Amino acid sequence: MINKQQLTVIKIGGDIVDDNALLGAFYTQFKSLKGPTILIHGGGNRASTLQEQLGHSPIKVDGRRVTDLAALEIVTMVYAGLLNKKLVAGLQAKGTNAIGLSGADGDAIRAHKREVTTVDYGFVGDIDRVNVSFINDLLLDGKIPVFSAITHDGNGQLLNTNADTLAAKIAMAMSSLYNTQLFYCFTKPGVLQDVTNDQSLVTRIDKGLYKEMLAAGQIVAGMIPKLETAFQALAQGVVRVHLGKVDMLGDNAIKHTTLCL
Amino acid sequence: MINKQQLTVIKIGGDIVDDNALLGAFYTQFKSLKGPTILIHGGGNRASTLQEQLGHSPIKVDGRRVTDLAALEIVTMVYAGLLNKKLVAGLQAKGTNAIGLSGADGDAIRAHKREVTTVDYGFVGDIDRVNVSFINDLLLDGKIPVFSAITHDGNGQLLNTNADTLAAKIAMAMSSLYNTQLFYCFTKPGVLQDVTNDQSLVTRIDKGLYKEMLAAGQIVAGMIPKLETAFQALAQGVVRVHLGKVDMLGDNAIKHTTLCL
Repeated sequence: MINKQQLTVIKIGGDIVDDNALLGAFYTQFKSLKGPTILIHGGGNRASTLQEQLGHSPIKVDGRRVTDLAALEIVTMVYAGLLNKKLVAGLQAKGTNAIGLSGADGDAIRAHKREVTTVDYGFVGDIDRVNVSFINDLLLDGKIPVFSAITHDGNGQLLNTNADTLAAKIAMAMSSLYNTQLFYCFTKPGVLQDVTNDQSLVTRIDKGLYKEMLAAGQIVAGMIPKLETAFQALAQGVVRVHLGKVDMLGDNAIKHTTLCL
Repeated sequence: MINKQQLTVIKIGGDIVDDNALLGAFYTQFKSLKGPTILIHGGGNRASTLQEQLGHSPIKVDGRRVTDLAALEIVTMVYAGLLNKKLVAGLQAKGTNAIGLSGADGDAIRAHKREVTTVDYGFVGDIDRVNVSFINDLLLDGKIPVFSAITHDGNGQLLNTNADTLAAKIAMAMSSLYNTQLFYCFTKPGVLQDVTNDQSLVTRIDKGLYKEMLAAGQIVAGMIPKLETAFQALAQGVVRVHLGKVDMLGDNAIKHTTLCL
């Protein structure tokens, strides 16, 4: 199995999809990538904005967002509709044969509603199964699957899923067939020693350094689950995980992103 | 080419997707259909409701709706997101391997922005090309393509398209490979001699009868473009066109729907 083909799984934040300049840079970089590719996109602020416009207050418990039925409808509209189709049409215009998917389409991603313990997160999905053969058929056919992080439970219920986790689960599952690398793209160059200084990029991070930086308060907020997910992916077959900007995909990645190892 | 396989193309109105009782009846009938099937759904009232909630007044010129940029975003959210994924998850729950698509996905349906003559309809698409080989690959793979009527122009622009027309164009294009029948499903039993009396079903209609009924004022409003599209489909290779209720799909269709011929 040493000669498995390379697969690139890319997760881009919703803030990139919302920004046409960043999105343009992304399309250009994306087009230069070689071999099969899977794209997963986040949601950005559009869902929150729409929620506010409709007079729904986002519900949070212990600082974490709860997806009630109204919120589920909104994220389904924004992620699986507006952003997913914007990306697919944009990629098609660049000659990339993208196909937009939710987890329900082709039964691609099966999840279950998160169990209620101390907190009821509502219609939030934890992923059970990635349909590797369906996704692989699309890749073999030259398609670029573009996933929004809306999944289903197989009983007709759509579920809101974390896009970072979805990207990692897809990368892990596809590792049975491919040498899979995972890119988390956002608006920062990667893990920074000083979050206020974009020049302070940490180009390589292992679990030991991660724990040191965590203890020192250098890694905070959304970067914590992202790095936890990255190390989990590495432990489960993914070959490399990079974190960085969209214009550092491809050959620039080694020098100009954070490589998790 | 006499032995071409049968293909069923079904268009369901958005009012059916919005009504869980009708949708349940539809899923049951749909599951009983034999052979490859393609589903196209309309939008119903959800897009208009959302437009009103967001304080956008639907713009109409000469009684026809204009799709400005805000309206395009709303229909993309509602049709390609909310309704499409609801349908796909519902079909998946019945063991039907549905895959939801807009015209941008896999470059399935290419359209152009309608030219401005006396009226500028905005981001409304007239269909140029149906990607028969992509759709057929999905059918051969046992998938049920589920289309929302959002298309693209190949240059990154999404377009709002009439769902009846999209269904007819798909049926016409697929007729090169299949004996294709087209069903228009709505909440009425079909063409009625008296629109206030559901018992007055016209079970067979040809162009001659259509013109008589049109002259007599028996066929009005949305039924006119639907029947025009039906006769156009028949003229371009579609074998049969039925109009009727969702629970009359399949073997009941001959007696309990309107057959256009």
